[in-house]
Amino acid sequence: MTTRLLRNARLLDLEHGGEIGDVVVVDGVIADLGPGAADRWLAQAGAAASAAESTDLGGDLLIPGLVNAHTHSNQTIEKGLCDALPLDAWMVVASYGGAGARLSPRDLYVSAMIGAIEMVRSGATSVLDCARSDNEWVDDGMDAIMQAYADLGLRANVAIQYSDLDFFSSIPVDLVPGGADLLKPPVASPDVVLAAANRFVDRWQGRSPLLQPLLGPSSLPRCSTELFEASVETARTRGVRMQTHLLSAQSQIRMAQQRYGLSTVEFLAKLDALQDWASFAHAIWLSPEEIELFAQTDAVAVHNPASNLKLGAGVAPIPALLKAGAKVAIGSDGASSNDTQNMFETLKLSTILHRVQGPPETWPTATDGLGMCWTNGAAALGADVGRLAVGAQADLTVIDTDYVWPAPAEQLRHQLAYAELGSAVRSVYVAGEPVLVDRAFPGIDEDALRAEARSIAERIWTSLPARLERFEEVRPVLEQIEAAVGGGGASCH
Amino acid sequence: MTTRLLRNARLLDLEHGGEIGDVVVVDGVIADLGPGAADRWLAQAGAAASAAESTDLGGDLLIPGLVNAHTHSNQTIEKGLCDALPLDAWMVVASYGGAGARLSPRDLYVSAMIGAIEMVRSGATSVLDCARSDNEWVDDGMDAIMQAYADLGLRANVAIQYSDLDFFSSIPVDLVPGGADLLKPPVASPDVVLAAANRFVDRWQGRSPLLQPLLGPSSLPRCSTELFEASVETARTRGVRMQTHLLSAQSQIRMAQQRYGLSTVEFLAKLDALQDWASFAHAIWLSPEEIELFAQTDAVAVHNPASNLKLGAGVAPIPALLKAGAKVAIGSDGASSNDTQNMFETLKLSTILHRVQGPPETWPTATDGLGMCWTNGAAALGADVGRLAVGAQADLTVIDTDYVWPAPAEQLRHQLAYAELGSAVRSVYVAGEPVLVDRAFPGIDEDALRAEARSIAERIWTSLPARLERFEEVRPVLEQIEAAVGGGGASCH
Repeated sequence: MTTRLLRNARLLDLEHGGEIGDVVVVDGVIADLGPGAADRWLAQAGAAASAAESTDLGGDLLIPGLVNAHTHSNQTIEKGLCDALPLDAWMVVASYGGAGARLSPRDLYVSAMIGAIEMVRSGATSVLDCARSDNEWVDDGMDAIMQAYADLGLRANVAIQYSDLDFFSSIPVDLVPGGADLLKPPVASPDVVLAAANRFVDRWQGRSPLLQPLLGPSSLPRCSTELFEASVETARTRGVRMQTHLLSAQSQIRMAQQRYGLSTVEFLAKLDALQDWASFAHAIWLSPEEIELFAQTDAVAVHNPASNLKLGAGVAPIPALLKAGAKVAIGSDGASSNDTQNMFETLKLSTILHRVQGPPETWPTATDGLGMCWTNGAAALGADVGRLAVGAQADLTVIDTDYVWPAPAEQLRHQLAYAELGSAVRSVYVAGEPVLVDRAFPGIDEDALRAEARSIAERIWTSLPARLERFEEVRPVLEQIEAAVGGGGASCH
Repeated sequence: MTTRLLRNARLLDLEHGGEIGDVVVVDGVIADLGPGAADRWLAQAGAAASAAESTDLGGDLLIPGLVNAHTHSNQTIEKGLCDALPLDAWMVVASYGGAGARLSPRDLYVSAMIGAIEMVRSGATSVLDCARSDNEWVDDGMDAIMQAYADLGLRANVAIQYSDLDFFSSIPVDLVPGGADLLKPPVASPDVVLAAANRFVDRWQGRSPLLQPLLGPSSLPRCSTELFEASVETARTRGVRMQTHLLSAQSQIRMAQQRYGLSTVEFLAKLDALQDWASFAHAIWLSPEEIELFAQTDAVAVHNPASNLKLGAGVAPIPALLKAGAKVAIGSDGASSNDTQNMFETLKLSTILHRVQGPPETWPTATDGLGMCWTNGAAALGADVGRLAVGAQADLTVIDTDYVWPAPAEQLRHQLAYAELGSAVRSVYVAGEPVLVDRAFPGIDEDALRAEARSIAERIWTSLPARLERFEEVRPVLEQIEAAVGGGGASCH
């Protein structure tokens, strides 16, 4: 039995308003908390008490760690890749259009580590990572990413992201003359793709309490119906969770009607995929009917406000989703569409962005934002995190109150949601284990990792001219498609 | 003659693409720069060379410091004050509606210091601060704020913010029954208000190269025509710069037509106020005609994206302003409407926010964002900052390249605009003097300041119930006015 006593902290979550107390962690789980909890535990524990590690937090704020419910760790090495490119054009220049840099397993390890370090420094304790590894080394690549999270100690759901259709199969190329010339045959057979996913699940399911392998069909438009259906069936029968992208581009509305004769959410419902084990990134272009349908299920939508702004993908209807009772979590998205991996930035944008739509009574509040991050982030992960409660995982972030005013409870939430960008994060615990201690990562050679990241980045940047060339080839068609579907900017939902 | 040699840095501004070189600073001004500049200067300087202080920057990135062209230092002490309140309601709860906390000169000093520390830590070297000091101690209050900037060493244009009309005079109360009951007589005579401003200018004009006193008529709707005209005349005759707020709320369109029979920008043009010595915060609700008129002048608009989102004030037509050739700078705004004072956040939002409007070819790029921050920030200040060039002020920020990939020049700009939130800022120089050195403020007792800030905050938070009570009294009328003018959310321009 491993016990850790975190004493003398201001406890803040959706139930606690900043009162001073302790948290008792036993074997990674919160065993008791509140005023006098540490002494109470010591009095009861008898002989076992002597083994407890005790830390006085000196009145610092102790909150549940932030949950990053959607990113792509393979992109961290390409921060700053693009500028003012709309979503579909970005897909071509970034990794998914076939012109991306090829990352070896070691590259993927370093990229995941650098991203995870940024997340933890800005207060995150868990992540849902849709990671892509090259087909050539998909097993070693995915294992390398899992190893990065294991080495850092971050809680990670890692979805093996896959597709069997080429990017151009996912957009309505038929809308423009010559568009169909871009189509290519499927990149792989559903069997081969799913076999790799199953091997990943075989290797990692149940292996570590902090790591979960997930299925990651890229999106409905990027998957054959056969592959997507098989993914849903695999998730159900093997008890493995799934994350995919949902209506991230306006053009996908048309794709669903063409391919399924149903709206995207209707088709997901038909597949019985709107389950509590499934989460859906972006969720921008849902119709009012789709919002209602989605909200009646236990599936989780993941809002990615910075990425959606940068790519002009649209403003997701978060107020409508929340009002309808949908579960909405929040995520940074990958570092080539939102170049930071800072969950405080995502938290702030998740509330303030929606004030471009709807009247004030629909605006998400600081409490709504924290609920999306903590409660719905936990739902996306399928983990008991995001709250300070007996039985919950001790995923905890310590905020230096030198940077936080001693305001009433309601204002403390405002300060977390609006006034912080991570500089006040002092320490981070995951399942009770210290990951960040006084702003340092014990046992991690951060300098060496960053030096290696720089050398990888130098190499992969050499692929940029080829990518831009490929983009220029297809640009005219992409622009016509975007104009035809009304997407690419001007996209207040 | 004071000389400082900054050696071995990657030089980045709008002209330099990240090449390694030195910067030679003589008496606060860049005297030479580029490869070999330090040795060249030493060879020429002869005996004087021995007095030069030399710092090897070890290949770190050296950029012009970020310019924060609009904030309110008196609000820093109230970070996290409000949640989901629309602009006019926020005005009542925050300082300007008559229910705000009263800050003594010492409170104002501490508030300015805490805000300035946050700005510098996130890479800013200069600020344009519209500061409000209580009438009772306006002279001491404004002097305290100036002293804060002097003590920290930040370059500051400080506008004494004033008005002679009550807040309710600035909104179209006639639109709703009972609205006119809220009107109060003018809060002060124009003479008294302007006399205080003149005393402030008398005390500070020419006193320090880093500090400029500015005139700060709050906004056209908050000032009588007499006061505003006198402000413009004073600015012109005394050679003192001016900052005011411009069309920050949709309701002000109607106010201008009612009061002047002209649009706001037309009226400013009639007053001959659209000069290079004048800058205008927010600039949201300009008509296409007003955008064209504004762009034909040398006046500077200051974009405040985070604040505009948080208060649902609207999305400023920045692409249209830039396309028309207007000078647009960027600013954090005060900490009770954008609770951070982090210019990297403002820089990122200033580019990505505008992808909710217009097609991709109108989206501001990273280079546009940096140009707004540096070139137009310099224009707002009337200072030769924001560039690495012989003769420019040595206002410089050192970015730890451990956090920045060694990407090509164009990508380095992306990383500044999108991938940074200030954690990589290592050191900051203002007019060649070190303000932040390896993340610490030499000579500043930051802990003591923060402790004092906490105790001030504890006191002023006690005024919150009274403010909220006042807000509830006027809330029904405000909501009706907002509904009548179509403002308060749903405000994509």
